[in-house]
Amino acid sequence: MAVIDLNCDMGEGFGAWAMGDDRAMLDIVTSANIACGFHAGDPSIMAETARLALEKGVRIGAHPGFDDRAGFGRRTIRGDSPAAIERMVAYQIGALQGCAALAGHRVTHVKPHGALYNMAAVEADLAMAIARAVKAVDPALLFVVPPLSAMDKAGTTLGLRVLREAFADRTYEDDGTLTPRSVAGSVIHAPELAAERVVRMVLDGAVTSRHGTRLPIVADTICVHGDTPTAVAMAGAVRVALEKAGVLVRPPHPVQSATA
Amino acid sequence: MAVIDLNCDMGEGFGAWAMGDDRAMLDIVTSANIACGFHAGDPSIMAETARLALEKGVRIGAHPGFDDRAGFGRRTIRGDSPAAIERMVAYQIGALQGCAALAGHRVTHVKPHGALYNMAAVEADLAMAIARAVKAVDPALLFVVPPLSAMDKAGTTLGLRVLREAFADRTYEDDGTLTPRSVAGSVIHAPELAAERVVRMVLDGAVTSRHGTRLPIVADTICVHGDTPTAVAMAGAVRVALEKAGVLVRPPHPVQSATA
Amino acid sequence: MAVIDLNCDMGEGFGAWAMGDDRAMLDIVTSANIACGFHAGDPSIMAETARLALEKGVRIGAHPGFDDRAGFGRRTIRGDSPAAIERMVAYQIGALQGCAALAGHRVTHVKPHGALYNMAAVEADLAMAIARAVKAVDPALLFVVPPLSAMDKAGTTLGLRVLREAFADRTYEDDGTLTPRSVAGSVIHAPELAAERVVRMVLDGAVTSRHGTRLPIVADTICVHGDTPTAVAMAGAVRVALEKAGVLVRPPHPVQSATA
Amino acid sequence: MAVIDLNCDMGEGFGAWAMGDDRAMLDIVTSANIACGFHAGDPSIMAETARLALEKGVRIGAHPGFDDRAGFGRRTIRGDSPAAIERMVAYQIGALQGCAALAGHRVTHVKPHGALYNMAAVEADLAMAIARAVKAVDPALLFVVPPLSAMDKAGTTLGLRVLREAFADRTYEDDGTLTPRSVAGSVIHAPELAAERVVRMVLDGAVTSRHGTRLPIVADTICVHGDTPTAVAMAGAVRVALEKAGVLVRPPHPVQSATA
Repeated sequence: MAVIDLNCDMGEGFGAWAMGDDRAMLDIVTSANIACGFHAGDPSIMAETARLALEKGVRIGAHPGFDDRAGFGRRTIRGDSPAAIERMVAYQIGALQGCAALAGHRVTHVKPHGALYNMAAVEADLAMAIARAVKAVDPALLFVVPPLSAMDKAGTTLGLRVLREAFADRTYEDDGTLTPRSVAGSVIHAPELAAERVVRMVLDGAVTSRHGTRLPIVADTICVHGDTPTAVAMAGAVRVALEKAGVLVRPPHPVQSATA
Repeated sequence: MAVIDLNCDMGEGFGAWAMGDDRAMLDIVTSANIACGFHAGDPSIMAETARLALEKGVRIGAHPGFDDRAGFGRRTIRGDSPAAIERMVAYQIGALQGCAALAGHRVTHVKPHGALYNMAAVEADLAMAIARAVKAVDPALLFVVPPLSAMDKAGTTLGLRVLREAFADRTYEDDGTLTPRSVAGSVIHAPELAAERVVRMVLDGAVTSRHGTRLPIVADTICVHGDTPTAVAMAGAVRVALEKAGVLVRPPHPVQSATA
Repeated sequence: MAVIDLNCDMGEGFGAWAMGDDRAMLDIVTSANIACGFHAGDPSIMAETARLALEKGVRIGAHPGFDDRAGFGRRTIRGDSPAAIERMVAYQIGALQGCAALAGHRVTHVKPHGALYNMAAVEADLAMAIARAVKAVDPALLFVVPPLSAMDKAGTTLGLRVLREAFADRTYEDDGTLTPRSVAGSVIHAPELAAERVVRMVLDGAVTSRHGTRLPIVADTICVHGDTPTAVAMAGAVRVALEKAGVLVRPPHPVQSATA
Repeated sequence: MAVIDLNCDMGEGFGAWAMGDDRAMLDIVTSANIACGFHAGDPSIMAETARLALEKGVRIGAHPGFDDRAGFGRRTIRGDSPAAIERMVAYQIGALQGCAALAGHRVTHVKPHGALYNMAAVEADLAMAIARAVKAVDPALLFVVPPLSAMDKAGTTLGLRVLREAFADRTYEDDGTLTPRSVAGSVIHAPELAAERVVRMVLDGAVTSRHGTRLPIVADTICVHGDTPTAVAMAGAVRVALEKAGVLVRPPHPVQSATA
């Protein structure tokens, strides 16, 4: 039986500001990537999101980003040494572990956010810095990466268990990379279309590129977005379609509470 | 043989800004309270301070404060629920654990900073919130507190091992509380005088109040400050005087590396 | 003919985070208090809010708060000298003037935010510090204050033109102070009730206290809130009721563009 | 008689953290570039630096940088639109004007900081955004720029008065650009050598490149750094050498107080 994990970024409010409907998304996904206070999130949001995830049986992971609240971690920031990046990531993983401890939950994966994710997808020294941080904090942490990326290679090199992710709402180029967001049509807004594509990725191990080419794709987890107006409808459609197609939607391993 | 721990706040720079001579202080003290990025410190400073402490055989602890870089954690901030404080402290302890993991060191104590310390010394709900965070993250963490304070009581109530601290460079009132800094003469600047007072605290279990009264004092650890121009001289004089008086200066338990 | 100004806090998003429906509120109110980047707001939001206000003929003012994004400026922060508060307020007024210049608008009033407002309402040294900042930056700025407060007195003492404000959605105690938010029923949620109370304040110069006492009230401007789900409905009801009652809703002086 | 302005970055502390010896530098230079709270500085430091500058007859300018305290404004940050940069700069200039008003001083120039300066030196859209902000806030502000840079061109295009600056402690390439800091020997540490080079720049309008080529150089102002251990010695040597050589060291126009 085919199985797949659904992951979503969460806990991306800050103080009085909210973002996304985490409660609804936690009824749909099986893994939550929780912002760690650098690009979004704060200790209260982190602990509360962890608590809610545990209640709903959702696995949690750290979602570290640049220290850039003003830019929501989406701005490219250059000038930090790989060692500084490594420390910044270790800090954020540890911080979430502290908050998760209060909620009785356990952090079991790491997925970088925004500009850090995009940069580490193609830059080997950055990818290795992040992977070193993951390994140092807890070598059992799963490392969520784009397939065939520098992060994929770094995680594998260091002996981490990597989870390769595909995107429900993004189109792909013929070379297997994501179509840049700046290209019209690169983001899929129709829930049914996205759902159908995800089912094909999981059952056939393939996706059709923007230009009509059939591409092989390896996906251990599917990323659905939580910060758009149609996020809940999109994620729900993906989950329903997967289950209708007989795919088992579940996390890559059982959710562990802190006392497990 | 009398034994005592010497603790000092450290890692209180931020980015390009430095504070104190941590390297020199780490040759003198046996426990380092490392700022966790909220009132001071950043991931690089935290990891580097942990590394240096391990190299010099110094025990490390989290030094959580209010999220107040502009005020260095010294401003009283009201409006957070005890639950929010609990989460803020858990976040900071976890963050230091993450950075310490990179350095191969292990966090073994927690001592709140500045306004958070002063408020939690007298406010039971705040003290309990902090103690709950310490316990949730790691119940083996030592909790450094003012003797007889609300923190002392909270730690004891929750079954934490508390370390009671006295101050080398501060005068005491007749009721055993610290003389407020606003009172002239409340801070002792002469290293020899401070050193002599510390020796008496350790050997006699007593200190002379500002008004000449002999007060009993329980001290498991002595706090020396690191952020004044005479900090190194003061701390050095205290250590030398203690050793001359036959006191063993050592941490409350052996320094543990992360692999211990 | 009776006239009144309606003011609302605005521009309280930050980066990717939104708050309130400023566009809708700007169709209703005559004065906008724009957050200045310390408790909320950022340069882009400030400039854009100023631009929109000019387009809709709404007067703008600085809404300075504590440097407390995490607490949205609602946390009481103690430890700053009056001189530091004075500088912090001058900074924020100037910053808004800079952003308004880009929009071709002109800052014509100042109203402190949140905890700073509440503290300065009763603390003379804080109120004077704020008033000194206002005067130093531009002595023609109107100073929006609670009637009979320390800010009212400070503004008057320094020769500023003060605008006394009343609240559409809050109940009053018998001594004329606002009922604390912690008291049940202190916030009025029914638009019609709020609207009727505002009409009475403007036409009769009186309001009925929570305990049924008729209190005289001086109001040059009425504050309507923009950050609740019913904010637009509430503010709209107030404006409609005022106009039906024959009250002219307009700013205290003509809106000035930067080139006026 | 040859005249020259000496400028230095100042007010680059933050809260409890200090940087540089501004008081000593203000006895040497004629123009102070004051950090505006984004990469360094805070309202109190800004107002105090402005006050001290007025007392010593030194002209002040805004020194806007990226919102990057953690990186001291030295990290390259990409992702902001030119409009966002324009607003960020307008905000910072206005903020300094507000603080300067308290000190009775007047802001008369603008010089971008760090990564913003380096990026705007070569990127036309960024340079124009900054120049538009300067012009919108006050078209009489002098715009300090590298000669022949994108900023030079932007300022000239918008009709701003530009001040072209040369560096006392940096070597130049044959094409007239600064040798990158990463190249060994690119920073001159010997005060006498720097001083001699500055005298030649001012009197001969030329500098010798790293490879021995004589280059023409236009300098309305010479930048001396304030944040190195030898900063005061270096700046002092430059000033003394200039005066010995008969050069008049003075700001480009008389220092204006706010009441001038």
